[in-house]
Amino acid sequence: VPVEGAVVAFGELLLRLDPAGGVRLVQAGAFDARYTGAEANVAASLSGFGIATAVVSAVPDGVLGQACVDAVRRHGVDTSQVLRRPGRLGLLFTESGGAGRPPRVVYDRAGSVFATVEADAFDWAEILRGARWLHLSGTAPAVGPGAREAAGRAVATARDLGVPVSLDLNHRASLWSLAEATTVLGPLAKQVDVVLGVGDEAAGLLGFAPVDGDVIGRLDRVREATGARCAAGTDRTTGDDGVLRLRGVLVDESGAHVSRGYPVTDQVGRIGTGDAFAAGLLRGLLLAEPGARVVEFAAAAAHLKQSVTGDVNLVTVDEVERVIAGDVDQTAARIER
Amino acid sequence: VPVEGAVVAFGELLLRLDPAGGVRLVQAGAFDARYTGAEANVAASLSGFGIATAVVSAVPDGVLGQACVDAVRRHGVDTSQVLRRPGRLGLLFTESGGAGRPPRVVYDRAGSVFATVEADAFDWAEILRGARWLHLSGTAPAVGPGAREAAGRAVATARDLGVPVSLDLNHRASLWSLAEATTVLGPLAKQVDVVLGVGDEAAGLLGFAPVDGDVIGRLDRVREATGARCAAGTDRTTGDDGVLRLRGVLVDESGAHVSRGYPVTDQVGRIGTGDAFAAGLLRGLLLAEPGARVVEFAAAAAHLKQSVTGDVNLVTVDEVERVIAGDVDQTAARIER
Amino acid sequence: VPVEGAVVAFGELLLRLDPAGGVRLVQAGAFDARYTGAEANVAASLSGFGIATAVVSAVPDGVLGQACVDAVRRHGVDTSQVLRRPGRLGLLFTESGGAGRPPRVVYDRAGSVFATVEADAFDWAEILRGARWLHLSGTAPAVGPGAREAAGRAVATARDLGVPVSLDLNHRASLWSLAEATTVLGPLAKQVDVVLGVGDEAAGLLGFAPVDGDVIGRLDRVREATGARCAAGTDRTTGDDGVLRLRGVLVDESGAHVSRGYPVTDQVGRIGTGDAFAAGLLRGLLLAEPGARVVEFAAAAAHLKQSVTGDVNLVTVDEVERVIAGDVDQTAARIER
Amino acid sequence: VPVEGAVVAFGELLLRLDPAGGVRLVQAGAFDARYTGAEANVAASLSGFGIATAVVSAVPDGVLGQACVDAVRRHGVDTSQVLRRPGRLGLLFTESGGAGRPPRVVYDRAGSVFATVEADAFDWAEILRGARWLHLSGTAPAVGPGAREAAGRAVATARDLGVPVSLDLNHRASLWSLAEATTVLGPLAKQVDVVLGVGDEAAGLLGFAPVDGDVIGRLDRVREATGARCAAGTDRTTGDDGVLRLRGVLVDESGAHVSRGYPVTDQVGRIGTGDAFAAGLLRGLLLAEPGARVVEFAAAAAHLKQSVTGDVNLVTVDEVERVIAGDVDQTAARIER
Amino acid sequence: VPVEGAVVAFGELLLRLDPAGGVRLVQAGAFDARYTGAEANVAASLSGFGIATAVVSAVPDGVLGQACVDAVRRHGVDTSQVLRRPGRLGLLFTESGGAGRPPRVVYDRAGSVFATVEADAFDWAEILRGARWLHLSGTAPAVGPGAREAAGRAVATARDLGVPVSLDLNHRASLWSLAEATTVLGPLAKQVDVVLGVGDEAAGLLGFAPVDGDVIGRLDRVREATGARCAAGTDRTTGDDGVLRLRGVLVDESGAHVSRGYPVTDQVGRIGTGDAFAAGLLRGLLLAEPGARVVEFAAAAAHLKQSVTGDVNLVTVDEVERVIAGDVDQTAARIER
Amino acid sequence: VPVEGAVVAFGELLLRLDPAGGVRLVQAGAFDARYTGAEANVAASLSGFGIATAVVSAVPDGVLGQACVDAVRRHGVDTSQVLRRPGRLGLLFTESGGAGRPPRVVYDRAGSVFATVEADAFDWAEILRGARWLHLSGTAPAVGPGAREAAGRAVATARDLGVPVSLDLNHRASLWSLAEATTVLGPLAKQVDVVLGVGDEAAGLLGFAPVDGDVIGRLDRVREATGARCAAGTDRTTGDDGVLRLRGVLVDESGAHVSRGYPVTDQVGRIGTGDAFAAGLLRGLLLAEPGARVVEFAAAAAHLKQSVTGDVNLVTVDEVERVIAGDVDQTAARIER
Repeated sequence: VPVEGAVVAFGELLLRLDPAGGVRLVQAGAFDARYTGAEANVAASLSGFGIATAVVSAVPDGVLGQACVDAVRRHGVDTSQVLRRPGRLGLLFTESGGAGRPPRVVYDRAGSVFATVEADAFDWAEILRGARWLHLSGTAPAVGPGAREAAGRAVATARDLGVPVSLDLNHRASLWSLAEATTVLGPLAKQVDVVLGVGDEAAGLLGFAPVDGDVIGRLDRVREATGARCAAGTDRTTGDDGVLRLRGVLVDESGAHVSRGYPVTDQVGRIGTGDAFAAGLLRGLLLAEPGARVVEFAAAAAHLKQSVTGDVNLVTVDEVERVIAGDVDQTAARIER
Repeated sequence: VPVEGAVVAFGELLLRLDPAGGVRLVQAGAFDARYTGAEANVAASLSGFGIATAVVSAVPDGVLGQACVDAVRRHGVDTSQVLRRPGRLGLLFTESGGAGRPPRVVYDRAGSVFATVEADAFDWAEILRGARWLHLSGTAPAVGPGAREAAGRAVATARDLGVPVSLDLNHRASLWSLAEATTVLGPLAKQVDVVLGVGDEAAGLLGFAPVDGDVIGRLDRVREATGARCAAGTDRTTGDDGVLRLRGVLVDESGAHVSRGYPVTDQVGRIGTGDAFAAGLLRGLLLAEPGARVVEFAAAAAHLKQSVTGDVNLVTVDEVERVIAGDVDQTAARIER
Repeated sequence: VPVEGAVVAFGELLLRLDPAGGVRLVQAGAFDARYTGAEANVAASLSGFGIATAVVSAVPDGVLGQACVDAVRRHGVDTSQVLRRPGRLGLLFTESGGAGRPPRVVYDRAGSVFATVEADAFDWAEILRGARWLHLSGTAPAVGPGAREAAGRAVATARDLGVPVSLDLNHRASLWSLAEATTVLGPLAKQVDVVLGVGDEAAGLLGFAPVDGDVIGRLDRVREATGARCAAGTDRTTGDDGVLRLRGVLVDESGAHVSRGYPVTDQVGRIGTGDAFAAGLLRGLLLAEPGARVVEFAAAAAHLKQSVTGDVNLVTVDEVERVIAGDVDQTAARIER
Repeated sequence: VPVEGAVVAFGELLLRLDPAGGVRLVQAGAFDARYTGAEANVAASLSGFGIATAVVSAVPDGVLGQACVDAVRRHGVDTSQVLRRPGRLGLLFTESGGAGRPPRVVYDRAGSVFATVEADAFDWAEILRGARWLHLSGTAPAVGPGAREAAGRAVATARDLGVPVSLDLNHRASLWSLAEATTVLGPLAKQVDVVLGVGDEAAGLLGFAPVDGDVIGRLDRVREATGARCAAGTDRTTGDDGVLRLRGVLVDESGAHVSRGYPVTDQVGRIGTGDAFAAGLLRGLLLAEPGARVVEFAAAAAHLKQSVTGDVNLVTVDEVERVIAGDVDQTAARIER
Repeated sequence: VPVEGAVVAFGELLLRLDPAGGVRLVQAGAFDARYTGAEANVAASLSGFGIATAVVSAVPDGVLGQACVDAVRRHGVDTSQVLRRPGRLGLLFTESGGAGRPPRVVYDRAGSVFATVEADAFDWAEILRGARWLHLSGTAPAVGPGAREAAGRAVATARDLGVPVSLDLNHRASLWSLAEATTVLGPLAKQVDVVLGVGDEAAGLLGFAPVDGDVIGRLDRVREATGARCAAGTDRTTGDDGVLRLRGVLVDESGAHVSRGYPVTDQVGRIGTGDAFAAGLLRGLLLAEPGARVVEFAAAAAHLKQSVTGDVNLVTVDEVERVIAGDVDQTAARIER
Repeated sequence: VPVEGAVVAFGELLLRLDPAGGVRLVQAGAFDARYTGAEANVAASLSGFGIATAVVSAVPDGVLGQACVDAVRRHGVDTSQVLRRPGRLGLLFTESGGAGRPPRVVYDRAGSVFATVEADAFDWAEILRGARWLHLSGTAPAVGPGAREAAGRAVATARDLGVPVSLDLNHRASLWSLAEATTVLGPLAKQVDVVLGVGDEAAGLLGFAPVDGDVIGRLDRVREATGARCAAGTDRTTGDDGVLRLRGVLVDESGAHVSRGYPVTDQVGRIGTGDAFAAGLLRGLLLAEPGARVVEFAAAAAHLKQSVTGDVNLVTVDEVERVIAGDVDQTAARIER
């Protein structure tokens, strides 16, 4: 059973392979390897903020599964509910973007032990009894029937036990079709307290008409459609000055809150900024901070993530606060020593 | 259609991931990556010996499949019959051996496009029409029903067309049970001209009683049981001087031929020595050399492979001949310049 | 003899050494190594676009020559006409640019087997008999008398056989003087169908008065001076918005065609963009596409090259088409998964 | 407070820097970096054997201290009693041995936060209340007055609470003189249950006359001199066959137990074999296994460590058992797949 | 004794450890290692400009000290006055900046042999007798009493011998408090000919009231407060076009001289630009060039440093002159070959 | 002019490229790079032993030449007589040996600036005036006419000035034929004081009949044939125990001296052991030590070199003395800390 009072994150653990030296996948002769998972990244990031967390998952019973566990507990995350099963580990290959090319993620997750875990593998009543929060994302139910059923049971049990739940929609078109996702994520989203994700497909997933351009409007509709206490996400827009900026947006009962715009410059840590935002947001909600402050912290955390290699946002609360305080020379012209 | 007069090798192409720096799998933070395949390695090695070859296989239709093709044709092997299919690429992870630990290969091949290729994907009559030889190994039928069916059709067609066939038994206990392998490899072996492999499981696979210790005896039984023209394999035994040596053994209609014993020292190229032996053997058979010479060349090639990184035996005919001629200082005390 | 219907590229193959980690040459303790050649890069890129190609060259008869051949055929390029000769391989060292410093290439090509190949080494009538196109660049005749003579014979033979010829002027001041280049490239350019290169030295090389600033005007003069069917090149200019952009320009019988301007951002693949442009251009000409389309494809290909490590433009036709379609978020803000 | 029932290890955490690529220290241009500590290595190894452990230490309050904590908890070791203090982290540089040169460790530990930690920093009564065992080594009191005082208090408290204590003598001549060590380690050793270490200096440290050659005799004297329940260590001797072998030796109330001799071949994991032996030994003692079995497991674990990169013995109980069962081909001639 | 006519630089030599691959310190598994020192960097850079230099310092008497000496003399700097002492080498860890984070330097210099060198270790009269110049920086007296005393004696002796002295204020808040620095650097600065540094703390250090924004005003006050012949420093300001630019500023008896503004783009060589500026400046002063030219050269040198990995400005006089001449395409669009 | 009293070494400086990771040349995707030269290695090694040395050579006038100079002076060797000339730098590629393959060196030295340096480039009277010794090897005259003429003049001048001369025969069959070498090295060897080299070709080079097996006999004949004061070399023979051992042999007026036999185990530093032996020998001769001691030091130094990466023997006099004293555990079983 995870440590008492932990934020419980349910999701797949995977091996991420990045071409060494930033070359294209087709020419890679070596890969940097990291064990990752959208929900585990949120847990690890929260742990770095000083909040107790646990990951619930299933991994292969051999050496790769052990490596997953090692990678997660390195961040101080409880792994007592990471089950071992015979079978394969899900993988993902990445490719950095460049001139004329977007960054890419190539999944190889079919048939993984997590995707095919037996539905009753997790004793959710036991796991969630002392939990502070449950977090999961749309990729967990996407990968396979076992994970899907487990996700449903997890949310239902959390509801029963009064454990708040957050769901990051995270629609991945390469894992399932929008139609399929809709039948699963739609009902799930209606049972949770916090919905993350402002992508264009939110409308499709949640069954409302597309909302033009305006992020706040879209999040309003998300709240409306799901009944969630709050809906949040990040928005990247290019300003009149030609600078692309990332903003966090949060809509809750007190209204809409938009963070400052943080310049999008570094690409090395591009993957995982969504999870960094989620972790920053959950921290604020757990600390019951006001909405404006919650979203500012989340956006500043996501901003910092952009220059952090790997999936976990290896930053401290102090570093996030300094960004919020505007106490950082974004030109990196001044060395701290 | 492959180039006229080529040795055709049928088998899976895979991505091989070796922990960088020789560390254990559980601690690997980076992997050296190579595209490989038992049969493709034989083809590449033969190509390096100046013999035209082609690989027949199926790979994913995306970037990883393209990388497979690039890796194979780098060695001058024809890839016109490497099909592209949606799906995943088979993988294998390796771990070097060390004090108290054998070298290991961890497969992740389930559900690959090769394993699940449709039975009629390959037009064998067309492919083998102008072929000089067909080579395959026991792992091809092991990975899945599509590959199994295709392997059967390939051998049958080759027989019809009078194309000689070699089969490397290559039993892999982690891919299928011995019982299952027996029902497939047994009948297959009865249709081929050359059988490679002297492992203990040969008896089981081919349905004869285990033969005590003696390799020649075992190969005799293999010939008998299969009706193959020749049976061959490598044997590693430690001599009275405490030195482990590798020997090639070949049994054909002219009797048994045993190569000199080559010291087993380097481990960096341990994986792939079987394929190197097979390539050396096929070269001799294709050139219609006498048995003693055939097996000496094959064993010397396998010996050289032991210090070659990766799966392909990157050595020249000249280098093999120098080993056979005893013209190499095995102490590496003398530098050539 | 190369494969029937191939685009034949004639030029030197070299070993390229890049300081590992992007440091300066003077401090490099390791080099990334790649085998390259202006004309072979064009062939490899065309091969990636699905067009049959062959490289004609001469390399050392030892291991470095073999490595050249392996590198070229990895891309599916025919290497049956790459001759082996005793002698040395040409080399080039690179240094990335940085604040206050341009990127540099330091050649070490003097006395290479290609530079000194005997004039009648290549049986051009045989080689070009079934060829679809002949491509060469100004560096081939620059490196030495053997290559120079061979280049002349190749062009003359192609003309006789009706094989279209393209010549990339590629003047390299460190290989020969402008005066020397003029006496060779001037006459050569008058025999070809397509001339690439808009550098300031074009006037000198081809014997016309310098043309002010305007690329189209310069290309018009190139066509005029050479009688080529079309003249093309790339132009990099900084717009009013302070953004440096690359444009392709093509002048043919239908007039002048200028591509969109693609932002110059990545530097990792800076070297080789000219070859990428040439390959894109040849593809369009081979497919008999209209001039505007030809130059757009070529420019988009060159744009993509800027973020591709190494000399070969490892991109697909689909990727180029997406760039042309404007279907790529140049901010790399959106991950494809 | 550490997890209930844990084996508590008290010692310094350090940054270990190994020249990349195995070069000499004087020429190293890069270092592989690992966070380590003799006692933490024992804890991590025990954790890998499925035994709950905790490390008690003090690290800098900045990023390097955090990295220490991350490295330890990656192995599932409790780090709740790793204190943060302003100051520096101890370091060690290593150099692999080679022809004519022993492997070396160069310490830079003076003035570290652990060495200078305030004497009452650790609330030992609280920490050890629920502990299963206390382990420490002679380097902890060696590095400085704070650590020395803390080690004394830890042992005294453990004694009071009835928690068994093991002490690895680990005399390091570069940290303190034998005379100084004697005044500290001598008394300490008299209060513990298990003493590890058979080095020549044991006599000096514990105040008995040097014992000739015989390890068992030396361990007998250690037991006698200290009153410890058992004394153990490893012995490396070259046999008549010229093979150097490692043996574990344990002397307890039931007599002397000597393990099989395991060949010393690999050097990559040379550093840390003592800690691996200690962990194997503690496991056996904790499981109350008979002496012969305890020492065999410990020696086999140390044997395996020799090919494991880094300080922690990343092996499983199964792997150790296979070595004991003689089920491993030490020639690494057979690949497991 | 150093070579006759050398510029003598007095300061600490350190081991600099940079996380490999640009990751954060907390996640670094490997470090690039370089031996450095503010004053030695100036000496090495001057040596690259063809000026004889010597470093005076103290390093450990073991292998790390030898590595320091090797690193310095690689640049042609005289090391005959680098003393060897038992003890530790100072270290520094760096972390590149990124989105929301400044670049950082984490010092570990306490208790180094340089910091604790005995006051009379250096025979300054002997060392400086034939010297052309003495250069030191504020970090030398900051690290410890021995270095502080030695710095004082060096400056006094230079004064006596008529050797000009330059002092780079280089206040490092993590090494000592501003108050402490003031009592040492204030008096020292009053004895030197050239003062470098325009940081906000100059006022505090030198005891004048803070000067608003204007660099020239601040340098005027520095000259006034110290009586130095000239005061100089670099200034980074963002222009109306949003581009951050570096400018050199020099105030001497002929007035104030401001260099052109060089765009701040590269970050790889961010650390060490101050030393590069100092070296450029000293070269001009040594050659008795006019102030405007002196500062232009210094600023252009600092500009170039920004893309040079490591601490030493590995550029030639020619390269600096080309930057001054505006002969460099800052877009790096044109390759030199 | 080199520093007074220096040992002057005359020879080529080259760039050495080793395939990264020990792979074969044909598959190398990266090279470790080092600047080297047989004579410079001797100088650097002597410098490490505390003896003043200088290298006389010619290198390209660009960045690669500068890198040569930096690499040499890093070891404290005077480079004031390393001339800069337009042209190319000599190169060498290496390949480690392995099962069935000797280590290889592939030269690319033809046409280098050293090979083609003008005969009167070096003012030998000036250079050698204050010299303590002149050392050169047979590769210097081998590479080209300029170097050959310069070598002849150097030896003649040294003779005139009474500077002792040592010549390492170093016959390289790939640089020139034995016949050609004989006409050059034969006369040269007759003018020197010390001849190194016991290879089979010594007889041919020096014009005496081959001497059977016995090294001492061969060296006797070398002395006789050349009139040198002493002749020396290394011998590698396998003992009855199957262990290959390296021995130094020296024949001088006091008779023949043979060192102990040192086991040949490490291969990483195989290249350069001859230079290490030469340096050890010269040190003894310079210190006028007795022959037995001279050759023991030289052999122990060569032994140590075998595990030192790169060409320079990075060991201290202390380390050599420890090997001679038998104070080193050759099993590397004991760590020094």
